[in-house]
Amino acid sequence: MAGTGEERKPAELLAAARGGQRRAVARLLTLVERGGGAAEAIAAATHPLTGAAHIVGITGAPGTGKSTLTGALTTLLAAEGRRPAVVAVDPSSPLTGGAILGDRVRMEAATGAGVFIRSMATRGHAGGLALAVPGVVRVLDACGFDPVLVETVGVGQIEVDVAAAADTAVVVVTPGWGDAIQANKAGLLEVADLFVVNKADRPGASDARRDLDLMLDLSEVSGAAAGTGADAESRPAIIETTATEGEGVQDLLRAVDAHHRALKAGPGLQARRDRRFVAEVRARLEHVLIQAADDVLVDVDSRSGATPVEAARHLADRFLDTDTPR
Amino acid sequence: MAGTGEERKPAELLAAARGGQRRAVARLLTLVERGGGAAEAIAAATHPLTGAAHIVGITGAPGTGKSTLTGALTTLLAAEGRRPAVVAVDPSSPLTGGAILGDRVRMEAATGAGVFIRSMATRGHAGGLALAVPGVVRVLDACGFDPVLVETVGVGQIEVDVAAAADTAVVVVTPGWGDAIQANKAGLLEVADLFVVNKADRPGASDARRDLDLMLDLSEVSGAAAGTGADAESRPAIIETTATEGEGVQDLLRAVDAHHRALKAGPGLQARRDRRFVAEVRARLEHVLIQAADDVLVDVDSRSGATPVEAARHLADRFLDTDTPR
Repeated sequence: MAGTGEERKPAELLAAARGGQRRAVARLLTLVERGGGAAEAIAAATHPLTGAAHIVGITGAPGTGKSTLTGALTTLLAAEGRRPAVVAVDPSSPLTGGAILGDRVRMEAATGAGVFIRSMATRGHAGGLALAVPGVVRVLDACGFDPVLVETVGVGQIEVDVAAAADTAVVVVTPGWGDAIQANKAGLLEVADLFVVNKADRPGASDARRDLDLMLDLSEVSGAAAGTGADAESRPAIIETTATEGEGVQDLLRAVDAHHRALKAGPGLQARRDRRFVAEVRARLEHVLIQAADDVLVDVDSRSGATPVEAARHLADRFLDTDTPR
Repeated sequence: MAGTGEERKPAELLAAARGGQRRAVARLLTLVERGGGAAEAIAAATHPLTGAAHIVGITGAPGTGKSTLTGALTTLLAAEGRRPAVVAVDPSSPLTGGAILGDRVRMEAATGAGVFIRSMATRGHAGGLALAVPGVVRVLDACGFDPVLVETVGVGQIEVDVAAAADTAVVVVTPGWGDAIQANKAGLLEVADLFVVNKADRPGASDARRDLDLMLDLSEVSGAAAGTGADAESRPAIIETTATEGEGVQDLLRAVDAHHRALKAGPGLQARRDRRFVAEVRARLEHVLIQAADDVLVDVDSRSGATPVEAARHLADRFLDTDTPR
């Protein structure tokens, strides 16, 4: 095995990856996911090379056809001569491997067209996705992929965070009241820049659009009342697609590009990048602090007579530098 | 409004609550949920009075009939002369209020029988449930309610954490492959002490039982391989119920009581209480640290040239006491 790419240094790998070697890209991403010193070296090397890619989040409940839609979108992008990459954030259970594999198989047409696809598992990362995804996106951006589509499965906090970290957040629903409600409950409504009603050939597509419109009306009212909405460039567009037939995908791509242009024309794009930077710093800082907290928790004695509140305060006092700015 | 219960001090409220005044209990819980100094005073006053109640977690996916089951269980407990309380942890969306209200209405029979029921919203707490639920359970325990049933909606991390913090964790599924899979994916399988196949009059109940058995077999194998399983008193029982008809609820209650007795006969009960104590201290410590992290994040400048990794390390260094034990 001597002399294989496995032993190349991050800087060397990055040069090869930027030269178009797909295997070097894959290897860099593996090192980023693994964390530690190599991941930090790659972050340092790639950070100055980023900023060209449009980061697009695609999220929604399972079964909304996000993978098919992402596949259709990337095929179209590749046909236009662009270089899209996909980061697919999956819950990984051995028992659902089949379903996920099915999605991946559906994306194979896209891979055939030269699209770079990377799957990341949520299970086992334990909150680590907030650390790993930004690093993976940074490598793809630095390697010239544009746009970078980040597809998440499910509507939990991870999905909201990932969507909120995109330049353009696309939320996918299907006909039927349930999905729009789910998206709203999860807080996806507030971060959506574009809505897709996929499987629009099914009954209820116009109802789904009306539900979304109603919820947007309600959120604009409450947003105005709360004095927020500074970042609200415009009301999210609602696009109908039937991804399996490729229908509406061209419209979606035009809407995604239009949102990007609108962001670039104002302070929006830089604001989102700043927010993304701070979100990553926050995730890393919290990770360091929580690890340090776990180290001191070994000293906790439930039979000391102290309440949990007192025990936590005692540990925090020992823990935090007294010079820490409040 | 002068002279109403609203102005009573925590100690006075606690005395009234322990004397059986339900309104004083409700008021204490409101203060606990609100946090701050009053909540801490209540924690200090109630902590020494706890330990008598059996804490039972009831969790599972939406639609499994948990509320109906909880209602039936508490009605039975009240009929036996016991004093159950229910903490219902709900996702609170204005748009789903109807469905939740429906569940609550179904629980009204139980309320009529003298059961104390408290609903807590997950939305708006933003991770704060890990802080608020233990305090609410502590008050109910100190006021003589036993058992305290903590019912959660959904199968996310919050639900797993709440279930893991119970003396006895009951995981509810319904006939059909999906639920068992969902519970497994969410990590509920590992924390379950008892399984309920509710709606057992529907087709597929025996399949659901077989699915659970299979997953338990798999997890025993992997648990044995990993050298874990010290806390595994016994393989979780699987109880079939049709809560709407009251069928199997007596069996479930017997299984819940049997699990409690088995815990008390060995080191299990104390081990779970220690674990619960440490979990609460961890949640509080993390909360303090994350707040402190947010305070220093205002200094982050995305255009300083530092990578997010470097920026986070710089903040952590400023932040952590150098004397902190590693």
